[in-house]
Amino acid sequence: MKVGGQHYHTIWLNEDGRSVDIIDQRWLPHEFRVVTLKTVDDFARAIREMWVRGAPLIGVTAAYGVAIAMTEDPSDAGLDQTWDVLHETRPTAINLRWALDDMRTLLRSMPEAQRAEAAYKRAAAIAEEDVELNRSIGRNGLEIIREIAKRKKPGERVNILTHCNAGWLATVDYGTATAPIYLATEEGIPIHVYVDETRPRNQGAQLTAWELDGHGVPHTLIVDNAGGHLMQHGDVDMVIVGTDRTTANGDVCNKIGTYLKALAAKDNNVPFYVALPSPTIDWTVKDGVKEIPIEERSGDEVTFVQGRGMDGAIMTVRLSPEGSPAANPAFDVTPARLITGLITERGVSEATPEALRTMFPERALP
Amino acid sequence: MKVGGQHYHTIWLNEDGRSVDIIDQRWLPHEFRVVTLKTVDDFARAIREMWVRGAPLIGVTAAYGVAIAMTEDPSDAGLDQTWDVLHETRPTAINLRWALDDMRTLLRSMPEAQRAEAAYKRAAAIAEEDVELNRSIGRNGLEIIREIAKRKKPGERVNILTHCNAGWLATVDYGTATAPIYLATEEGIPIHVYVDETRPRNQGAQLTAWELDGHGVPHTLIVDNAGGHLMQHGDVDMVIVGTDRTTANGDVCNKIGTYLKALAAKDNNVPFYVALPSPTIDWTVKDGVKEIPIEERSGDEVTFVQGRGMDGAIMTVRLSPEGSPAANPAFDVTPARLITGLITERGVSEATPEALRTMFPERALP
Repeated sequence: MKVGGQHYHTIWLNEDGRSVDIIDQRWLPHEFRVVTLKTVDDFARAIREMWVRGAPLIGVTAAYGVAIAMTEDPSDAGLDQTWDVLHETRPTAINLRWALDDMRTLLRSMPEAQRAEAAYKRAAAIAEEDVELNRSIGRNGLEIIREIAKRKKPGERVNILTHCNAGWLATVDYGTATAPIYLATEEGIPIHVYVDETRPRNQGAQLTAWELDGHGVPHTLIVDNAGGHLMQHGDVDMVIVGTDRTTANGDVCNKIGTYLKALAAKDNNVPFYVALPSPTIDWTVKDGVKEIPIEERSGDEVTFVQGRGMDGAIMTVRLSPEGSPAANPAFDVTPARLITGLITERGVSEATPEALRTMFPERALP
Repeated sequence: MKVGGQHYHTIWLNEDGRSVDIIDQRWLPHEFRVVTLKTVDDFARAIREMWVRGAPLIGVTAAYGVAIAMTEDPSDAGLDQTWDVLHETRPTAINLRWALDDMRTLLRSMPEAQRAEAAYKRAAAIAEEDVELNRSIGRNGLEIIREIAKRKKPGERVNILTHCNAGWLATVDYGTATAPIYLATEEGIPIHVYVDETRPRNQGAQLTAWELDGHGVPHTLIVDNAGGHLMQHGDVDMVIVGTDRTTANGDVCNKIGTYLKALAAKDNNVPFYVALPSPTIDWTVKDGVKEIPIEERSGDEVTFVQGRGMDGAIMTVRLSPEGSPAANPAFDVTPARLITGLITERGVSEATPEALRTMFPERALP
């Protein structure tokens, strides 16, 4: 989508045909920095330290990471080692594993000499598929927004609440939760987005607000605590969030705090939608609360916060007393019973095992 | 409670018998600063700019503000003007109005020459009553904690989640939500407190964590988003929060985000208690969601955050893009149906109009 009037993707292959540029998202919204990744270690660090984040973008980045590895060591051993190095960077991300498995399966089947070229081709295809997936999600979500807009008085805006960043910055382009928003905006439907700050890493305040601002979508930043109150007072027409992992039952593992918004939506009859490309469905898992291990990240993400100081420098400040430890579960699971619908590239599915199996019969496990 | 091993109140009359010292809470947890208030404007600024906060402490501070005003202009006009100046500092705070009305009614009934002395005496009595109220709340809440502790295996701790700061820093001493915690700790019950950070002003991270740390109560800081996940996994035995205003029906207006925790508690069968001194009950209001106006504070509280920089200096940094506006509703209303019980100084009441009327028959409206 647009940054300063120019169209960008979050990741692209350079003209040298080997190195890859990404938007280093750690400095947003304060600085727009593009960095070049040249080694597997660069890719691993970019994923682990969240220079890139978001399930789809992590997958594409990992695919390019495998490609660059093949230019150095295209052996089976090299392939396996790259798989290991990249997989351990973000163990919760189902797309990461999906992309790595996809690449390894493809490359194993061909001679070493052809692997590098094939890997770049496949990584580019995964990136293109992501853009197309998101466009399809956008079209399907747009139908829901159109229906809500029809019930509004002329000129009244459709208020959408979103959590974290399932925006174009989390994908290659369009985003998942934001794709319907961008398409609706392009169609002229008056949209206004409530952006959850999304503590502790503030992806809403720092990324979603920035990308909506860059693309010209009206929005208001709120703290994560505020959404329930807004829903109580009729200020939210629908919630759309992304997901890191969706179970075969329709449970959704997404950024910590998503569950609380789903509870508030249910309590106030606000439709709660999850936008997802079907590769984020983990067909091997049923009960998300019981079965999905939740990544516990460093407490420093809670006790310190990064921002821009009055002098313009980006800096980190401590919020809490030095004697107080912090816990930092990064995700939570929203049970399917709280979810109005799953917006996929094929259509909007109910969050039930039956509906998901019907929509993706070829992928569902027996 | 204790700070650095020494016992403190949050507010006290100085030896000159006129000026009042407070803990300037804006610098916590990084610096412990005590400031002296000498004029009505000092008091108004201390309340408005949240040097002191918390319904009970605001009430006591306002009472001393009226007292100092009486040393300068004890006329009816002076009294009315002081009422106006102090009341407009925090219009949502029911205790503020209660204390101001109490002081004005008392002082109006006596000759001007006696007003200053009587006002200081009454302000001190309100402060003492607050300590006694909180001790009583503590004893009543302690009963609930004891019951939970009985069901634990030996050595297992009781996990209590709290939101914002309804601690001793919000009162004169003991706190409301924290009083049962402090008494249980003194009794040797192993307590562990999950402290909600409480965006946007971070009273949990900055105040509750600090006061629990100072008094030696084990605790863990979490972001506001994390509580639902912890409850899903059985990590929270009970929630105790404070309230700024409780309706005759038992609805609770408290810091923004309280409602979301109450929803999560309900969804996971975690008991959700609200600790309150009965003066925070507003008998004129029934339906809290419909009737209570919610204070909308500056968006700057959302977009900027204060912390301690690496060089030790306390500074403010910007979190979000300059082009993104922020909304900042300061409170929300938790409907009575989500509340297990109201811990008052007289005992634990169900959150129903009938139970509240039965417990406070002399105050309930017909």
